[in-house]
Amino acid sequence: MRTVWLNGEFVPETEAKVPIFDRALLFGQGVYEVTPVIDGRYCNWQYHGARLERSKALSRIHDETDWPAVIAGLIERNELAEGRVYLQITGGAPADRDFLSPLEPVPANRFAFTQEAALVDIPKAQTGLKVMLHPEGRWALRSAKTTQLLYAVLAKEAARDAGFDDAWFVEDGMITEQTAANAHIIDARGVLVSHPVDHSVLPGVTRICTLEIARAMGLEVEERAFTPEELFAAREAFVSAAGSLVLPVSEVDGRPIGNGGPGVLTSEIRKRYVEQLRSA
Amino acid sequence: MRTVWLNGEFVPETEAKVPIFDRALLFGQGVYEVTPVIDGRYCNWQYHGARLERSKALSRIHDETDWPAVIAGLIERNELAEGRVYLQITGGAPADRDFLSPLEPVPANRFAFTQEAALVDIPKAQTGLKVMLHPEGRWALRSAKTTQLLYAVLAKEAARDAGFDDAWFVEDGMITEQTAANAHIIDARGVLVSHPVDHSVLPGVTRICTLEIARAMGLEVEERAFTPEELFAAREAFVSAAGSLVLPVSEVDGRPIGNGGPGVLTSEIRKRYVEQLRSA
Repeated sequence: MRTVWLNGEFVPETEAKVPIFDRALLFGQGVYEVTPVIDGRYCNWQYHGARLERSKALSRIHDETDWPAVIAGLIERNELAEGRVYLQITGGAPADRDFLSPLEPVPANRFAFTQEAALVDIPKAQTGLKVMLHPEGRWALRSAKTTQLLYAVLAKEAARDAGFDDAWFVEDGMITEQTAANAHIIDARGVLVSHPVDHSVLPGVTRICTLEIARAMGLEVEERAFTPEELFAAREAFVSAAGSLVLPVSEVDGRPIGNGGPGVLTSEIRKRYVEQLRSA
Repeated sequence: MRTVWLNGEFVPETEAKVPIFDRALLFGQGVYEVTPVIDGRYCNWQYHGARLERSKALSRIHDETDWPAVIAGLIERNELAEGRVYLQITGGAPADRDFLSPLEPVPANRFAFTQEAALVDIPKAQTGLKVMLHPEGRWALRSAKTTQLLYAVLAKEAARDAGFDDAWFVEDGMITEQTAANAHIIDARGVLVSHPVDHSVLPGVTRICTLEIARAMGLEVEERAFTPEELFAAREAFVSAAGSLVLPVSEVDGRPIGNGGPGVLTSEIRKRYVEQLRSA
């Protein structure tokens, strides 16, 4: 049984509960982060912590938890070698339900848990993901990492139902991102094209590292939205996310991208990113 | 202390908790209903129950709770004369976090509680609400009554910060609705104009009753979206919601609507609706 963390205490996972009046439960007022763990160490906290501050500000959530201590404590207690640490902060549980937060703020509820998972040796890194295109329908403030995730859940389940690994969202004729990962292509010219950071996509931590590595490899990088047509004509396509690092996309709506397998440049970016995490 | 209901048991409100792995807490996968209670009786369950079924289907939540028995039990135990009963169903708490629901479904978490509140004798029925216009930014599936509510929370708090009672959303140049109520006008011609039922607004139960009453009063009703310009030129504006019945809107962005007080027709619709609830 895992040990999880809740509001200052390390407790068995079956004992961690929050009141039914919690504002994340009633209104989706919750922000979160997922940090990768490799070789028993958590990675990229400087980026995750900075994004968490922005998510909290946008979601009007106040909290000063010392997360690095919590994350390290969870990794140690659960002897986690490879996987993720998930942490969440909610708007707290006032005495009653009201859209308006109390003027006298209530304490946030805060919890975190580990997830064992292979990040490095995963079959999809060899075969690539098969994804489908799906209409965008999430809320407007996707730049914050909040629990407003039901649309992404429904799209991911629609993809599973249809025999795909995941879904890429299309809004006003442009790709935004995958349900829970940033989306990128190496276009027909060999240029890495990646949606710019604005309110329509999550500013991914892995995206930052990925683009840095690509530039260090001498790739030209254009931060702009791209169309499904550019995607279908691309040499390579891939996604980046903290929970799965960098993964190739081999097919979209049943049509192969490039040679229909993991792209050479994608595989090199992934390899270098794993090395970077291991040596950090 | 209130008695609330959680997964089949009536319990003290401070004891009602759900696991941190609940999918409403992690992904906003929760649906809910709010039924008005007047004279100790709950109202319009046929409509609320039907909408709940649609919300569940869209949100992929499975549950067969006998809600009328729960609601009646809560009203009796809490001796509620006037107010609301809130009920929620979540995607349940699997053993671990994953966007994808387990293929073997887990039981939903279900809870409900009463809220004492004046519905009939409220000052705003005499003075009207002062609202502001605000860009729409909620997700695409607003026809389902889900806990994807953070955008509405933020808009309501922005309204409070700016000295308004609430906010009306504007999307593509048209009014959709208030943060948590349907929005209507009696336009310059004397026609009641109300946003049609589609994915961009909640299909309000009070809206159904309101439009029926208006038609019975001989008013012409047009179910179509209207613009801010039509709103500013309207004779009357009002909102409908289960939690507050029918309320006049007297000002929008600081500009008076009609004579700047509660509209005559709005007040008559409200009066008839209260009578209907009392005599049901």
